Amino acid sequence: MNSIEQYGDSLAQNAKKASTEIRSLSIDKRNAVLVSLAQKLKSRSLEIIKANQKDVEASKNTLSSAMIDRLTLNEARILDMASSVEQIAAFQDPLNRTLEKKLLPNGMELSRISVPIGSVFFIYESRPNVTIDGASLCFKSGNAVVLRGGKESLESSTLLAQIFRESLEEHQINPNAVQLVQTPNRELMSYLLKQNQYIDLVIPRGGVNLIRTVVEQSQIPVIKHFNGICHIFVDKSADIEAAKNILVNAKTQRPGVCNAMETLLLHQDLSDKNLQDLVQALLEKEVSIYGDSVARARIHGLKILENDSYFEKEYLSLQMNLKIVKDVKEAAEHIEVYGSGHTEAVLAKDLEVQNYFINHVDSSSVMVNASTRFADGGEYGLGAEVGISTDKLHARGPMGVESLCTYKWVLVGDGHIRG
Amino acid sequence: MNSIEQYGDSLAQNAKKASTEIRSLSIDKRNAVLVSLAQKLKSRSLEIIKANQKDVEASKNTLSSAMIDRLTLNEARILDMASSVEQIAAFQDPLNRTLEKKLLPNGMELSRISVPIGSVFFIYESRPNVTIDGASLCFKSGNAVVLRGGKESLESSTLLAQIFRESLEEHQINPNAVQLVQTPNRELMSYLLKQNQYIDLVIPRGGVNLIRTVVEQSQIPVIKHFNGICHIFVDKSADIEAAKNILVNAKTQRPGVCNAMETLLLHQDLSDKNLQDLVQALLEKEVSIYGDSVARARIHGLKILENDSYFEKEYLSLQMNLKIVKDVKEAAEHIEVYGSGHTEAVLAKDLEVQNYFINHVDSSSVMVNASTRFADGGEYGLGAEVGISTDKLHARGPMGVESLCTYKWVLVGDGHIRG
Repeated sequence: MNSIEQYGDSLAQNAKKASTEIRSLSIDKRNAVLVSLAQKLKSRSLEIIKANQKDVEASKNTLSSAMIDRLTLNEARILDMASSVEQIAAFQDPLNRTLEKKLLPNGMELSRISVPIGSVFFIYESRPNVTIDGASLCFKSGNAVVLRGGKESLESSTLLAQIFRESLEEHQINPNAVQLVQTPNRELMSYLLKQNQYIDLVIPRGGVNLIRTVVEQSQIPVIKHFNGICHIFVDKSADIEAAKNILVNAKTQRPGVCNAMETLLLHQDLSDKNLQDLVQALLEKEVSIYGDSVARARIHGLKILENDSYFEKEYLSLQMNLKIVKDVKEAAEHIEVYGSGHTEAVLAKDLEVQNYFINHVDSSSVMVNASTRFADGGEYGLGAEVGISTDKLHARGPMGVESLCTYKWVLVGDGHIRG
Repeated sequence: MNSIEQYGDSLAQNAKKASTEIRSLSIDKRNAVLVSLAQKLKSRSLEIIKANQKDVEASKNTLSSAMIDRLTLNEARILDMASSVEQIAAFQDPLNRTLEKKLLPNGMELSRISVPIGSVFFIYESRPNVTIDGASLCFKSGNAVVLRGGKESLESSTLLAQIFRESLEEHQINPNAVQLVQTPNRELMSYLLKQNQYIDLVIPRGGVNLIRTVVEQSQIPVIKHFNGICHIFVDKSADIEAAKNILVNAKTQRPGVCNAMETLLLHQDLSDKNLQDLVQALLEKEVSIYGDSVARARIHGLKILENDSYFEKEYLSLQMNLKIVKDVKEAAEHIEVYGSGHTEAVLAKDLEVQNYFINHVDSSSVMVNASTRFADGGEYGLGAEVGISTDKLHARGPMGVESLCTYKWVLVGDGHIRG
């Protein structure tokens, strides 16, 4: 057994052991830890910023400015982190909820009760704040977590995890409820992905290649998010003014995020003027829009969509595709082929069209007369989110603390035996 | 591409396509198909028995008598199958249920709606009735299914799947909603387990080795059931007469099933007479009970438990282990180490002991003063079950049609954009 295997075994086994200890902690105790954590984050912000500066310094020549921005912590961002922890502490307890209860014909009482999943392996990018969000959500829901952040954030994340562990120890709780991987290499990750005896769930966040690797190697259930190739279909019955606002919001408010629009589908019976108006609103925001010859024949200002592989692109920038479709049926068919199951929107006054879209589009979120940008745990009132799942099992769409719970059946009898 | 890959691709892609067609069928249409199916099973029973006889004939020298019994169909068993289909038709619709609904502060209406998972790859033993049960549960819940039964039941299962497909065609539904694998070899199974683009869920049933292979190879989420190493803890506060009945029921009513007791944990403060009485009831039913020297010093009639690896055995026969423990805490710790997360029971009048056991035993079902044998979809009122999951994601314990559903979020606005 080499040192990577030894380290992996210790992480996995420590997590499992901690999970058995923390799953029955009272909600008061769990919340008290989170409140201490928030206080420590605030009181130790200078120390955190100092550790973070080492990370930023070491990466300034290798990371893009957007990634440096995500990596960087300052006083305000640390306050945000602390406030996010306080919000999580304020959530209602996701555990010990009675999800279902019934009296069986034989007089036994059957309940289904929410319980923690157990231990979670959480893989994420070089964003130190995710260390605290991820660990807080896992702890609130009674799960032990093994955190594996990007290597560029190691100094910051190590200190943040350490502060979490101190908060645990102060409350006489096994600090291994929160462990941070100190050697974020692929070999250790691969090893941990096979520890299905000790780890119950893997949540990877990051680039498509990383996630594909995780899925291929994991023998543990994975909840993930591949792509956000989000579509908006504008029906002929749409309110055009509202549609313009929604399209601009969905594409340009934050083009780099997974719930931004990547493809616009327009009903062929929209008038030429309406088609042009909708597109114009986007062009004015400097969006590059790719359309095929049919679209370009009716709308000015489009760039050439060379072939259908454009529809498979997640631009994450001010570029997008446009297609004119016959009706909502063709729109749904296009989404079936090219969508990523994340979020799609229909803009229509016609209720039949709305309902067809809701029923036939198999995405984690379906929006009616609203921007795709709303697909978000915060917007849905879930509080902080672990991520947005494009999987179907077991959580779909924005994942809050309830997504980190499973259930057990409790059957209470009075000497009952089976006949 | 070899012929196995071609066949695998066609199965997977056909299933995906059928799933997009059947997911929005009305409940009336889904039920009508099931009612037709039940009628056909009854009216074509002679034909089914004839196909089944070929299977039985071909396997009579290779399979054990228990397996031959499971493989065999007769008039009564076909009527049972038909009646099971009728029951599934009578279930309430698991789809389109509003699981959650709320008005967001911005005036938008958020709902979470139950929808089918999509397409299911169902792997099972040589039990032809499971072909009909599995396909009916998947179809009721709007899922396409690829059925892969044991090779010994190929003739029977082929005819049963064919009858299902005829019922679908009669109702103008794509028959590929139900497909049966015609070459149940490992190579094709491995190939299908990689088709995560087309198949959403794998449910394997069968021996531990088969399931381990599936988990190791699958790039698709798997819901499975490894072992049923079920424990009963008898507290010092237990009703001894009730306990005797429960122990005998849990061990001997059907020793070969997954929810039978394999290990009995006895509180050390039970009197020697009570200990002996409890064990005597089992010995009278010819159960062989293995105990360590501590147990053998207090109880007569035990065999030697050579070492702790005995506690890892799923006997599935009239053999079991016995251990004397200090208290409910030690019982829960023993279960944490040796349990399989299936079903455990506590027999106690003391409410504190009951609650400690419920909270600290992390099994899919926890029984209080009742036999472990109750862990069953039928007993829980779920109707027929796809299996009993010892996984935590996404279904746990007995899995009925609701376990074959996921959800989507629907957000209805009125021109809302994100600020």
